[in-house]
Amino acid sequence: MKIIQPTLLLNEETCHRNIQNMVDKAKKHNCILRPHFKTHQSAEIGQWFRQQGVTKCAVSSLGMAIYFTNAGWKDITVAFPLNVLESDKVNELAKKITLNICIESLETAEILSHFIQHSVNIFIKVDAGYHRTGINTDDFQQIEAILQKINDNPLLNFKGFLQHAGHTYQAKGKLEVDQIHQSTSAKMIALKERFISEYPNLIISNGDTPTCSLSEHFEHIEEMRPGNFVFYDVMQAEIGSCSYEEIAVAMACPVVAKHPERNEIIIYGGAVHLSKERVTNKDGITIYGLVAEPHTSGWGKPIEGLYVKKLSQEHGTIHAPDAFIEKVKIGDILYILPIHSCLTANLIGQYSTLKGKEIGMYRFGF
Amino acid sequence: MKIIQPTLLLNEETCHRNIQNMVDKAKKHNCILRPHFKTHQSAEIGQWFRQQGVTKCAVSSLGMAIYFTNAGWKDITVAFPLNVLESDKVNELAKKITLNICIESLETAEILSHFIQHSVNIFIKVDAGYHRTGINTDDFQQIEAILQKINDNPLLNFKGFLQHAGHTYQAKGKLEVDQIHQSTSAKMIALKERFISEYPNLIISNGDTPTCSLSEHFEHIEEMRPGNFVFYDVMQAEIGSCSYEEIAVAMACPVVAKHPERNEIIIYGGAVHLSKERVTNKDGITIYGLVAEPHTSGWGKPIEGLYVKKLSQEHGTIHAPDAFIEKVKIGDILYILPIHSCLTANLIGQYSTLKGKEIGMYRFGF
Repeated sequence: MKIIQPTLLLNEETCHRNIQNMVDKAKKHNCILRPHFKTHQSAEIGQWFRQQGVTKCAVSSLGMAIYFTNAGWKDITVAFPLNVLESDKVNELAKKITLNICIESLETAEILSHFIQHSVNIFIKVDAGYHRTGINTDDFQQIEAILQKINDNPLLNFKGFLQHAGHTYQAKGKLEVDQIHQSTSAKMIALKERFISEYPNLIISNGDTPTCSLSEHFEHIEEMRPGNFVFYDVMQAEIGSCSYEEIAVAMACPVVAKHPERNEIIIYGGAVHLSKERVTNKDGITIYGLVAEPHTSGWGKPIEGLYVKKLSQEHGTIHAPDAFIEKVKIGDILYILPIHSCLTANLIGQYSTLKGKEIGMYRFGF
Repeated sequence: MKIIQPTLLLNEETCHRNIQNMVDKAKKHNCILRPHFKTHQSAEIGQWFRQQGVTKCAVSSLGMAIYFTNAGWKDITVAFPLNVLESDKVNELAKKITLNICIESLETAEILSHFIQHSVNIFIKVDAGYHRTGINTDDFQQIEAILQKINDNPLLNFKGFLQHAGHTYQAKGKLEVDQIHQSTSAKMIALKERFISEYPNLIISNGDTPTCSLSEHFEHIEEMRPGNFVFYDVMQAEIGSCSYEEIAVAMACPVVAKHPERNEIIIYGGAVHLSKERVTNKDGITIYGLVAEPHTSGWGKPIEGLYVKKLSQEHGTIHAPDAFIEKVKIGDILYILPIHSCLTANLIGQYSTLKGKEIGMYRFGF
């Protein structure tokens, strides 16, 4: 395959291994694996999960749920607070598949109960510490009000409590991730204990790649919902969720200019290819990507001393030591490991495998 | 038009006025206006420029140049360091239109000279202070080496010097923008004086929305190349390039959750809709967008005290005062003014006018 412009490369082998590892982990802990497909957004990559026996998935929008329904998925959770304006999509999906949706307010429950025409499963979205969305796990009053609303309508089936511990993204290493997991788990266990006698079939659904990758404590959890692990990225490697060798995507970018006087290389590859997601590295520098060693097929581990220091719309500015700049030529390809693979994949809209095969994905609004 | 999901609204009237204002400004200063189409990336919006007499444009990639060539544009500058790997596209375009490309190294000039099959105009990209790309304006030795290479090949025509003063994006107000412009202008004037006797037809091409919006000194400049002004955005309003009323795009986003206890509203509208571009506001807070007043048709100025404080993939977290949260309902639409309209438009890939008409745009890789 000849690369001539920013191209999102997918190492199929690494990706399959990441899937296999998470399937094994879920099995080991007796959890349902319901991978979040918002990372890859691809029917074909979804198929790779199916080959490993996965039959349930999560998505982040009703549009994406329709895409995966059309790709044959029959049990989908929209892991996002229900957007009541998309009632037609909810009914269309609920008619066709086992649709699980997330509710976190009585207001939403009332609107849903009003428009729903087919049976749908409801997760109550709870907040066990991340403080983005969800009802506080100890706000029994609000939870009971929603349960009442659900029980009043035979088309609404209470499925359980769903939480996302997104604050693990601020952690470093297994110990810190485990500490957060321990704190959220205590809250989820208390919640479960409070409602299990009344709802013996309720499940706890937990998702986030750091916890699912690093922790070994899932006794109280029926369902795991990680997403990013399918590709991983620099952010996950910095957290410690994966090694750099486990990152399954890289953006191949042509070198278009060199500025040795300020240790900079300019690549064709900017914010519209990589996204402006950033992390602070161990030296306190804000970086927008790392540069991986080129291999005969694909790429290897990050090259010491190189990083993406700035992104404009189409330009990427790479910091590189003298010795590297001296060797690099205009037209060479650099392999950029993305900070956040979900956003990078979403921007590019397709993958190229190392064998040059193109893999498509869901496009919002099209 | 019923909005049910994140929708990029375009106020046609404001957009037409922004175009008209820049056309008038270029005329007043006797400059060619070569608007940068990387902001809107739309054949239809390009047509609005044509209606105002604009016949030249700039783009940021060869793919985008092909898109606008297909839309009838016959004089296009690719305002990005030439990507030598896309030689086929260069030849395809050079055969069909007046193609202007940017060179900033002898290495690139040599490769270009080797593969070029049709006549092409060359701008030497110079650096007058931004330090992203370009040869230092006083590096006459390198400039002369490139000119020699251009002169050696009859298919290569030296057109002039091109610079982008992207450091005006760090300025606040007309005075600071003018100071930067004065400093870059001094360098461009010295460069012109050095080469004008040998190349009497050379032109100076300058682009950046703050300078073109605010400055009144373009005596030494033959061509203006601003892009963002077509829509403007929060970043430009913060610099002072425009008023908030001149921002021509807003993302309409449904409210999906409310958390009054922490003054937060959650919208369906995240990093995949708005981009993770951010600015620091006057209170030192990092913001990812502002919330505009809803009008009967469209939106008005920003609502005091509200801002986008955080973005996940699909979630936007709005900071809002108590009084606002009390009134807002699940399913209401909030109008988000984007920080950087170029990145937001690129993510969504289409516009909806206030009359509900859909306007398409170039899609990278498709």
